[in-house]
Amino acid sequence: MLSFSRDFNFDATAAQQTIINNALAAIKDEKESGRIGYYELPESSLAIIDELALESESNSLLSSGKIKDIVVIGIGGSSLGIKAVDSLLSQRVDTTAKLHLFENSDPVNISQTLSKLTKASSLFIVISKSGGTIETTSIFKTVIAHFDLDLDSADNERVMVITDSGSALSQFADNHRIKQFNIPDNVGGRFSVLSAVGIVPLTLAGYDTRALLGGADTFMDALFSGGEQHLLEKACYYYENAEKSSINVLFSYANDLENLTKWYVQLWGESLGKIDRAGKSVGMTPIGLIGAVDQHSFLQLVIEGPKDKSVTFINVDDFENDLRIPEISLKKIEKTDFINGKTFNELINAQCDATRQSLIDNGVPTDGITISKIDEENIGAMIIYYELLTSLIGSMLKINTYDQPGVELGKTILYANLQK
Amino acid sequence: MLSFSRDFNFDATAAQQTIINNALAAIKDEKESGRIGYYELPESSLAIIDELALESESNSLLSSGKIKDIVVIGIGGSSLGIKAVDSLLSQRVDTTAKLHLFENSDPVNISQTLSKLTKASSLFIVISKSGGTIETTSIFKTVIAHFDLDLDSADNERVMVITDSGSALSQFADNHRIKQFNIPDNVGGRFSVLSAVGIVPLTLAGYDTRALLGGADTFMDALFSGGEQHLLEKACYYYENAEKSSINVLFSYANDLENLTKWYVQLWGESLGKIDRAGKSVGMTPIGLIGAVDQHSFLQLVIEGPKDKSVTFINVDDFENDLRIPEISLKKIEKTDFINGKTFNELINAQCDATRQSLIDNGVPTDGITISKIDEENIGAMIIYYELLTSLIGSMLKINTYDQPGVELGKTILYANLQK
Repeated sequence: MLSFSRDFNFDATAAQQTIINNALAAIKDEKESGRIGYYELPESSLAIIDELALESESNSLLSSGKIKDIVVIGIGGSSLGIKAVDSLLSQRVDTTAKLHLFENSDPVNISQTLSKLTKASSLFIVISKSGGTIETTSIFKTVIAHFDLDLDSADNERVMVITDSGSALSQFADNHRIKQFNIPDNVGGRFSVLSAVGIVPLTLAGYDTRALLGGADTFMDALFSGGEQHLLEKACYYYENAEKSSINVLFSYANDLENLTKWYVQLWGESLGKIDRAGKSVGMTPIGLIGAVDQHSFLQLVIEGPKDKSVTFINVDDFENDLRIPEISLKKIEKTDFINGKTFNELINAQCDATRQSLIDNGVPTDGITISKIDEENIGAMIIYYELLTSLIGSMLKINTYDQPGVELGKTILYANLQK
Repeated sequence: MLSFSRDFNFDATAAQQTIINNALAAIKDEKESGRIGYYELPESSLAIIDELALESESNSLLSSGKIKDIVVIGIGGSSLGIKAVDSLLSQRVDTTAKLHLFENSDPVNISQTLSKLTKASSLFIVISKSGGTIETTSIFKTVIAHFDLDLDSADNERVMVITDSGSALSQFADNHRIKQFNIPDNVGGRFSVLSAVGIVPLTLAGYDTRALLGGADTFMDALFSGGEQHLLEKACYYYENAEKSSINVLFSYANDLENLTKWYVQLWGESLGKIDRAGKSVGMTPIGLIGAVDQHSFLQLVIEGPKDKSVTFINVDDFENDLRIPEISLKKIEKTDFINGKTFNELINAQCDATRQSLIDNGVPTDGITISKIDEENIGAMIIYYELLTSLIGSMLKINTYDQPGVELGKTILYANLQK
């Protein structure tokens, strides 16, 4: 369960209610017209789980039980969501296989990852929406050479491909009879974690992806059935304060939430950093912080620096860990004894509350999301919460939330330079 | 060696030269008056390395060679710098021991770290400048209980303490005859990586900290002898554009640079996010990105979003890794073959260049730092480069670069809430 709270004032005026109604109508239309596809994933991706169950029987490597390493080759939208879910769950759930990610062109990182893997226990999943991502194809070739993969016979069961239907990578897979899953055309990379992109590797690793999809579905249904008003109001507040509070901080109080904040940074930055219909550059800058660590880092700037930020606190009510500060008194450091006997779970949440209160006292707009505990269902709800919030704000800002024209120029320059 | 380049125009006018001269004079005065201590560390910390050599003989655990895990308990300025250096070097240098860090009050993270350690191979270093950091003392107590440390006899050699002279933690160490190193009073936490805070754990792990200090010393000497003018000009440019380009992005093209960007975020955010003498909130917002990954994430916002950002690109000229993209042509994906045969080292640097060029074409002010290769000397130079840049801009902004009054309120609230 997620619970929500906020400290900024928002009591919708008639004009604001119109903005809210229009945005809700706009995303309903995106959904119902089929123009934007991510809204369908919580239901449509259930079929992928069924398909994987069959594949796990027909694929001789999977059915043998020898696959212990699910190796994803992907970057950006093809890795961030997978990593976000995996890092939240890997220490909490008994998985059937371990996830590994190749997600950068850094040679040292690629070499390190290669050195940790053995061919016998690995299944490789190549993910590229367009099918021609330069980092992904280059690393895939490196993997083929390193493990001497014979894609025409023995090893074509050791590879899966996730890409747009009809892409170059899709045709390649067809050619080698490699199992492929497709990403719906109307689902963008950064909105794709609940498509095959996330569901295939996460299911093969052993996570309860049915619960992940269920958590997302329940939250989205509630919104479209007239519930979760706080989300609509937050979107309107963020939209109206987009210039004043142009920096949006996600302050998460748990180490394992770090990759979820990175996923949020991509979702928010790429979706909302745009030129609007009037030709104006708009964009809200996302920043991910981890508590309590960043109380000792970024917090000073939030408190005393320019009042250009809003902060959302995320905390975990129950870490399902009862580690306690022992009843030890250290001579000369007795002044910290008042905390003896408390759990770290209590401490970190008390730190979250105190930091939030100090921001409120300094006039920084804050709100909070409490995750009852870290499980698939709650993670699914968090994912769809941020996707819906992004879509709502994008609609209010009158921008195309779903493209990323700005990144093409760098690719063009890269190709031109490398082909010289 | 570091080499520097920039794409923004800066040709100092007489007025700008005055700003530069005043700031340089101000930090020279900070140094020579002894008011600010970090300038002395590249020389004064050499004595710590000598002291550690003696300690390694007299401490029976260290001299036995059984210590394979250096375990640091610290947070913020007491961990970020150590982690930055260690993650750059750990895969590149043969170390004598592995570094581990306890740096958050997250119970799951503490439990995980505990489970990886054995008492016999561990030496624990407790770092807290003030001596009473609540996370640090709480985790230290947990470590004492978990490993049943007897600090009055057998195990007092298994612990070291790094803190301000006379602090509660210092008195505690005296009481138990625990070896301690002190942080000079005039060195703040976020400027302390070249003090005992960084030098003790990094030396014990087996890094060449003499070269680290040497790299910092050489760069600083050059600045104070009239060289490295580009740094002064960059400081002036950043100062004059502090409102226009209020977000400063460090875009580092190597996975292992991620923790250096986190160190930079603390240094920049806590130092420059302040209320100035006129009572105005100033502050430049630091953001750390990793290339090529974040080309698929944050880049869109930089290109098309508000022009409120400057970007510094950091790249590594020589990764000392010759991994090549194999000469494999994948049927249907032949269009990526033009890159076959190139090294990933070439690819990632070409990506850095292309992304930078795309920002220049979009009017974003950029500059670049190229690190010839990752070694202690170059890391030392990077550290002092950013410390000096921070001090110069702080002086120009007329703020106190070295305090952090904004974070006290949260601590007060926390203590009050927990003592209820």
